Amino acid sequence: MVSVEEAEKITQSKTKDYGTENVPFDKALGRVLAEDFKADRDIPPYNRVAMDGIAIQYEAFLNGVRSFAIKATQAAGDIPSAIHQPNECIEIMTGAALPDTADTVIRYEDLNINNGIATIQIDNIRKGQNIHFKGTDKKTNDVVVPAHQIVTPIVINIAASVGSTELCVKKLPKVVVISTGNELIDVNQIPSPYQIRSSNNYTIKAVLQQYGLTADMLHIPDDPTTTKQQIQHCLSQYDLIILCGGISMGKFDYIPSVLEKLSVQKLFHKVKQRPGKPFWFGCYQDNVLVFAFPGNPVSMFMCLYRYFLPWLDASLKIITPTIHAVLGADVTFNSSLQYFLQVKLNVNNEGQLIATPMAGNGSGDYANLTEADAFMELPLERNTFIKGEVFKIWLFKQGFR
Amino acid sequence: MVSVEEAEKITQSKTKDYGTENVPFDKALGRVLAEDFKADRDIPPYNRVAMDGIAIQYEAFLNGVRSFAIKATQAAGDIPSAIHQPNECIEIMTGAALPDTADTVIRYEDLNINNGIATIQIDNIRKGQNIHFKGTDKKTNDVVVPAHQIVTPIVINIAASVGSTELCVKKLPKVVVISTGNELIDVNQIPSPYQIRSSNNYTIKAVLQQYGLTADMLHIPDDPTTTKQQIQHCLSQYDLIILCGGISMGKFDYIPSVLEKLSVQKLFHKVKQRPGKPFWFGCYQDNVLVFAFPGNPVSMFMCLYRYFLPWLDASLKIITPTIHAVLGADVTFNSSLQYFLQVKLNVNNEGQLIATPMAGNGSGDYANLTEADAFMELPLERNTFIKGEVFKIWLFKQGFR
Repeated sequence: MVSVEEAEKITQSKTKDYGTENVPFDKALGRVLAEDFKADRDIPPYNRVAMDGIAIQYEAFLNGVRSFAIKATQAAGDIPSAIHQPNECIEIMTGAALPDTADTVIRYEDLNINNGIATIQIDNIRKGQNIHFKGTDKKTNDVVVPAHQIVTPIVINIAASVGSTELCVKKLPKVVVISTGNELIDVNQIPSPYQIRSSNNYTIKAVLQQYGLTADMLHIPDDPTTTKQQIQHCLSQYDLIILCGGISMGKFDYIPSVLEKLSVQKLFHKVKQRPGKPFWFGCYQDNVLVFAFPGNPVSMFMCLYRYFLPWLDASLKIITPTIHAVLGADVTFNSSLQYFLQVKLNVNNEGQLIATPMAGNGSGDYANLTEADAFMELPLERNTFIKGEVFKIWLFKQGFR
Repeated sequence: MVSVEEAEKITQSKTKDYGTENVPFDKALGRVLAEDFKADRDIPPYNRVAMDGIAIQYEAFLNGVRSFAIKATQAAGDIPSAIHQPNECIEIMTGAALPDTADTVIRYEDLNINNGIATIQIDNIRKGQNIHFKGTDKKTNDVVVPAHQIVTPIVINIAASVGSTELCVKKLPKVVVISTGNELIDVNQIPSPYQIRSSNNYTIKAVLQQYGLTADMLHIPDDPTTTKQQIQHCLSQYDLIILCGGISMGKFDYIPSVLEKLSVQKLFHKVKQRPGKPFWFGCYQDNVLVFAFPGNPVSMFMCLYRYFLPWLDASLKIITPTIHAVLGADVTFNSSLQYFLQVKLNVNNEGQLIATPMAGNGSGDYANLTEADAFMELPLERNTFIKGEVFKIWLFKQGFR
């Protein structure tokens, strides 16, 4: 049995780079950029007019000119016009490229336009005003989005504007999610009074889907021969095997012994924690990783968010900050195990993240989890935890939506 | 021009129920439940053994029996066995249904098993221990997940376990995202020096994708006749039109006048805010809503998260809590507009959500947005904001991943 800290260290020592691949930019949401993302030209790409109005030469204004003949009207996307005389202007729209011969834009709100003559109504004009100058935000080849960033809707915006129709993203491991246990039946079947429906595999698949990862699913009955055959096959086909159930002390918990027979190196079995104590982790030929979670849904979910996803994030080179929250009520936990408390989060009017413990019937009560937002990791060495203390949390709802 | 508060009130007054539809449970991630979700049977469905070991009658233990003959071995999923004598037990596995004739489970760790006889090694045994009793978590027909909750991986787990192969979810509006402006070209084209690539439409599509909503896309050139024809067609085909650009004071900003000609009722045009001042909002025959955002990407993004998504959440009956954060540095903003500051969030060791302002080149600097997590809404009536003050934020990154 290892501590939570050791289990973390061991799983994190096995991060792996699965290479890169190109995907269409509008199909890359949730993926992780593998390369710095550079500007194909300056941003803005030209001296971009930032207000609708007229473009003039500032010197003319300085010399007292206030009325300007509108020489042309230039929309965004038009080839820039030109002015040649100090008392000329171009009527010009937001997003247009400033003519080379102009240097200042006066907005409609500060003008009076009559018979093709625009007259400035104010005195406070600055040279270069209302222009977003070429290259002010980024220069050609500047990094606009650094590697190892998740592709968000904003990254997609930038990809589109720099013309990156394909993005080079981190390849994801090929994953199979294996459920075990003779008590499990399919979702569309009617269970006998002593059977339950398979559900953990769907949860894991859904979580991985948020990373853009499509996992295969497989069910193995509690039979050592079939278990061995099926896992052997998976070891040759996948980068990663996630198992659920079959790893406790039960007579039909064949997983650990089968894995051993298949030369999967056990890196740890059992972690000093609740829920999730029976967690088994190993490695096959330094190539295929096996995360074997307890079959209890809450235990599985905790191990997924505490060990597996941080491992996946680290493998994809994403830096995930540690998050702390304020315990919202006193908690007592009398056990030598490290306790992961289910909590509901809210941000109070002082901007503090408050973690309210969820009442629950132990690790089996997964109906409870729908209302929780995170697990709070309470220190191993203590049994009582006081309202107002700050501890690490593992957030499992995406955002606060 | 309306205030931010008025714009919020007006958009929120136009929430709409788009009905419900059934979708396969494993395709429902991100959708919103339309109905309470009930247990099809008790949870747990039987007296569920919670540890591997033996099942006995507690009375026998009370009467001094310590050694029990193993009458049968029962795995999870097996039809329950029975014991008939006080000195008999069933060797039983986690997840199995407790036999009617037994009432207490002793785990392997507290046993010595030899020649088919299990002997209890400890004195401290409680009646009913290591059993998760039928219906302790939920009774048949209890609500396990209430309506108006987002379908998360945990909800999918519960759907699977109660056998809900289809979920009744809120129907989403039929949406078209329209980009406008002659300066825009396709992503795969090479822009001339005064053109830019279309990008806002992809961002909006990606954001909607996170809700399970697939939006159509359309580009309209700056031409009043085409604009009118195309928008007229959209008004007959969609529940919701999102427009980008063409709503300022420019000569080619045809959108507001075309919408007026098509009898789309203007509910407001321009909001006392930066970015996003030109935002136009209206309604056609109390049926089709039109959100017309400025073409500037930062302005568009702010309006999307400040007005459109809260409207969508409210239409789907999702309750989204208001989130506050602590301003991480002094900020000055000299304008009569309400300022939405781009901020990066982190949670400090005291569990406080700290919002650090991002330096940027005004509302046009969208490259900046990739590093920001939220907009902080600073009060309209003030121009200086001091480090340590707490203000409302609009989170746009999902979680902290």
